[in-house]
Amino acid sequence: MIIVGLDPSLSCTGWGVVRSEGARLSHVANGQVKTDAKAPMADRLHHLHDAIYAVLASHAPDRAAIEEVFLNKNPQSTLKLAQARGAVLAACGRASIPVSEHAARLVKKSVVGTGAADKAQVQAMLKVLLPGAQVAGADAADALAVAIASAHLAPKGH
Amino acid sequence: MIIVGLDPSLSCTGWGVVRSEGARLSHVANGQVKTDAKAPMADRLHHLHDAIYAVLASHAPDRAAIEEVFLNKNPQSTLKLAQARGAVLAACGRASIPVSEHAARLVKKSVVGTGAADKAQVQAMLKVLLPGAQVAGADAADALAVAIASAHLAPKGH
Repeated sequence: MIIVGLDPSLSCTGWGVVRSEGARLSHVANGQVKTDAKAPMADRLHHLHDAIYAVLASHAPDRAAIEEVFLNKNPQSTLKLAQARGAVLAACGRASIPVSEHAARLVKKSVVGTGAADKAQVQAMLKVLLPGAQVAGADAADALAVAIASAHLAPKGH
Repeated sequence: MIIVGLDPSLSCTGWGVVRSEGARLSHVANGQVKTDAKAPMADRLHHLHDAIYAVLASHAPDRAAIEEVFLNKNPQSTLKLAQARGAVLAACGRASIPVSEHAARLVKKSVVGTGAADKAQVQAMLKVLLPGAQVAGADAADALAVAIASAHLAPKGH
């Protein structure tokens, strides 16, 4: 089974593809989609949508995995994040790929063993779980983490 | 100039197209895009995205107009609304149509004459401003209102 993890944000959306075969997990690819902060919002969202659709079309994952949204206390931040998330989820719909959502705490627990793990711990575990993977950046790392967690958490036959 | 007004929401997104020639305003078309509440989020967002893109491709507006988002006190409502907005704005980007945003208060003021107008007053004024238009519903009415306001508010030569 191929799983793509997605970590949407307006400025930089991470993606990470893993292959899960029984208990074996391997790295396929990862990357980040950045948008130009000076471009109009509609163009930035379109760029995200299209770039993520291209990733899905290229890797043909069986499913996508995404963290449940973190509701920022700043409503403007929530708005930006949620608009980016909408553009990315619409790309999953366009590619007919089912999406599973996982709580951030469960993603960390699944990858590191504790729900309170910090980013550095998550990235260190990625090196262990996906040896040799060149990770494009912090957002791609988060995306790989949610893909790994989804492989662990969701029913294998799903 | 052709202007499309958009009133995004996850369950029902309104759209309304008007033609503005100098001080003259006329109705072109309007409608609503509903999504199935039982369908997965990604499919609903994809449906919105595609249906609005089809409207844009069909009417080839010079620009789109949308109300500035209303930040609901319920963060889950804001999330749903903003995700729908992201899918709709990405469709504008895909169609290369510039988007102008207008404060809800200015839309009402522009259509009715007062920023405190209620929905019934806005709908009554639509009948005056766009005689003969058959309006598909409350969301299509809101979309026509923002299109009209945008025709009034934005520079004619924009």
